[in-house]
Amino acid sequence: MRAVDIIAGKRDGKELSREELAFFINEYVAGTIPDYQAAAWAMAVFFRGMTPEETAALTDVMLASGSTIDLSGIPGPFVDKHSTGGVGDKTSLVLAPLAAALGLRDPMMSGRALGHTGGTLDKLDSIPGYRTNLSVEEFRAFLAKDGFAMTGQTKDVVPADRLLYALRDVTATVESIPLITASILAKKAAEGAEALVFDVKYGSGAFMKDPSEAEKLALSLTAAGTAMGKKIIALLTNMDEPLGNMVGNFLEVEESLDCLEGGGPADLMEVTLELAARMAVLGGRAENAAAGRKLCEQCLASGKPRELFLANVASQGGDPKQLLEMRGRRRSPVSAELRARPGPSGEAYITRIDAYKVGHAAVSLGVGRGRTEDTVSPTAGLQFHKKSGCPVREGDLLMTVWAASEEGLAAALPRLEEAVEYGSAPPAARTLVLKEIAPRTTPRPDQSFQPEAGNA
Amino acid sequence: MRAVDIIAGKRDGKELSREELAFFINEYVAGTIPDYQAAAWAMAVFFRGMTPEETAALTDVMLASGSTIDLSGIPGPFVDKHSTGGVGDKTSLVLAPLAAALGLRDPMMSGRALGHTGGTLDKLDSIPGYRTNLSVEEFRAFLAKDGFAMTGQTKDVVPADRLLYALRDVTATVESIPLITASILAKKAAEGAEALVFDVKYGSGAFMKDPSEAEKLALSLTAAGTAMGKKIIALLTNMDEPLGNMVGNFLEVEESLDCLEGGGPADLMEVTLELAARMAVLGGRAENAAAGRKLCEQCLASGKPRELFLANVASQGGDPKQLLEMRGRRRSPVSAELRARPGPSGEAYITRIDAYKVGHAAVSLGVGRGRTEDTVSPTAGLQFHKKSGCPVREGDLLMTVWAASEEGLAAALPRLEEAVEYGSAPPAARTLVLKEIAPRTTPRPDQSFQPEAGNA
Repeated sequence: MRAVDIIAGKRDGKELSREELAFFINEYVAGTIPDYQAAAWAMAVFFRGMTPEETAALTDVMLASGSTIDLSGIPGPFVDKHSTGGVGDKTSLVLAPLAAALGLRDPMMSGRALGHTGGTLDKLDSIPGYRTNLSVEEFRAFLAKDGFAMTGQTKDVVPADRLLYALRDVTATVESIPLITASILAKKAAEGAEALVFDVKYGSGAFMKDPSEAEKLALSLTAAGTAMGKKIIALLTNMDEPLGNMVGNFLEVEESLDCLEGGGPADLMEVTLELAARMAVLGGRAENAAAGRKLCEQCLASGKPRELFLANVASQGGDPKQLLEMRGRRRSPVSAELRARPGPSGEAYITRIDAYKVGHAAVSLGVGRGRTEDTVSPTAGLQFHKKSGCPVREGDLLMTVWAASEEGLAAALPRLEEAVEYGSAPPAARTLVLKEIAPRTTPRPDQSFQPEAGNA
Repeated sequence: MRAVDIIAGKRDGKELSREELAFFINEYVAGTIPDYQAAAWAMAVFFRGMTPEETAALTDVMLASGSTIDLSGIPGPFVDKHSTGGVGDKTSLVLAPLAAALGLRDPMMSGRALGHTGGTLDKLDSIPGYRTNLSVEEFRAFLAKDGFAMTGQTKDVVPADRLLYALRDVTATVESIPLITASILAKKAAEGAEALVFDVKYGSGAFMKDPSEAEKLALSLTAAGTAMGKKIIALLTNMDEPLGNMVGNFLEVEESLDCLEGGGPADLMEVTLELAARMAVLGGRAENAAAGRKLCEQCLASGKPRELFLANVASQGGDPKQLLEMRGRRRSPVSAELRARPGPSGEAYITRIDAYKVGHAAVSLGVGRGRTEDTVSPTAGLQFHKKSGCPVREGDLLMTVWAASEEGLAAALPRLEEAVEYGSAPPAARTLVLKEIAPRTTPRPDQSFQPEAGNA
């Protein structure tokens, strides 16, 4: 087998075999296939795409390039959610304890913030004492005890993805649906999830601006994940405006607690409950999404998810009591208020708050990072007092903003100002959950709910 | 400017500007743009193509990466022919002295054999004493004196092409029409040709198997060359069967002499004269191809081209007298005869001799090279005694074969046997020159016949 023939095959529209993909990826990780051949291959994949079976085989091969977490001995079902990234998206912090309260187990390995989108690990790290670098033994123990555990990816998880992603980033091959699919699925399969709910976001603050592109990714994730023997449902959700009222690391932990206590903002709760309903369905706790949603609402009202959230904080090194005391107080000292300027034309409604612009402003504040080596501030961020659809008058308080530095604040304020759009009438109601994508075929019967079978 | 943005632009179908192409190629040659970015770019070019203006700009930029031959002080017009490569194709050796005899000047920089196709330099090197590594001063002197000179490319001619070609070879991006176009045109522009006749071959023994692919390349060469201010005509010619009766290095020198003396085989003379006619037209010696062909036939009959060929042999270090004495005698001692085996079905005509199979067999004999570092034999090769259309009987002599080694002979014979196809009726007459491609637009008026103007 020669790398150049595999590249030529993909270039000419051929479906690559599992053996060809294994050869290519393994030799690439071993360093015998050089970056330039992998780059040409990735560009050919960008243009030619991959079949679901091919994408599943690529995922298996990438997964096999590293170690996977062994969850044997812990009763499942193991159900997780993955989002393609957004602004103000803290649903994971609510969904994990909610799934656990339903009797499911959520083995959550997450990433960090990059660019304008937030990262679950950075949010958790803002809880004093909380550790996101668990050993496999700790991860297993907390998952068994609390029903969920949240950690970062270790270096030996999917090394092929780490290498390939870095290469794709500099060769304009990030935007390939099958390569994105394999990257996401391999990391999720490595954590041991058997069933996955994908939150594929579209809109200004999402990776995919266009719903039709998001749908393509959702279809690819669903088809390839199903071909790997996973149970999959994907939702297309709107990310034109930040989710909820808080953007920031500790700020979003606080808002997650609000959600767990029944006080979450409507848009955030809507997306959270729709995702939770699918986790309940995939985990066998509900017949359909409507029943799942009802079950999740009842479960949240019981207080059990909040209890498990605080138990997890304690397990992973935080202090639940201290966390609750810090609410509303753990903020950067550098702050400002942003007030409404609807202009002289008599426009009197907020019609939109652009998620992309808010996300970029948040990076300046210190919430996220422009480069992987940057550090983030736990206490920076912003709180919306009004969002789209609200009537406003000149001078109304729109946002409170906290920054890691005066320079960051100065850079962020004009961008935040720009993010707010006004109109003379309220905007049409925003559809938060556009579509559900369920698998076209059932999982491989012999491998359903036996994730290791397809991954070796 | 960032390399990744240029790659993304081409990926998304953008026409790259001259500035972007200059940045990309120059930084690549300088080593600051790495191979993996160039590989991704080349694959994006494979899929997206380039406009003629873009291809011309790329050619200019590649040309400017190295040195060009200064022909100032030598009267033109400078007219050359370039072939995309074939088996038994020795037209260059006839065309250069013929053009010179018409009063044109042919500054010929050629390549070596690679794969199954032959190389003009290897043929010339088979003449004892003949030197193909001329200095620029020698090249200029012989061009001025004999009307043509034939040399290899020096290292400082189009270094961008040398780098890029090696990369394309291992990243399955050789087969890109604009990249092939720029590679060919840059090297031809570097030698100083103002007018170029392209022999774009199609068929089993050609780089392009399919006439429609060959036509695309012919159109691209014509359009981009015209955009660079060159006068261009391309012919699509058939390469399903080797051209002429000789395949081999010295063997092809001999057959070139036959052509110059009026004894060339019909297929070879047909292609040679059609190409020569276009050189006469582009060089202003004839109104049209028909008149050009007539002029070339008369010129050949005058003996002047043969005289100039022998003068060039003397100029470049060979001994014309010795060369003529060696005819029919300079052969490898390891030889064999191949006889007809039309089979029991009564098939009694050769219907085809597959050029690709003959070319590969010739590599085993020692005529060409599988890898660039291989050496070739001057005296290996084969002579056809019958070609397609000939009636044959069992045991008739088909070919005499000379090999550099017994192993090479043993490897070549079954392939040669396989190359010959028989039928019960003669095949349809083969069209040797399928089509002429002339420019759609006129050259840039201010730069026509001033090649340096567009190349800086």
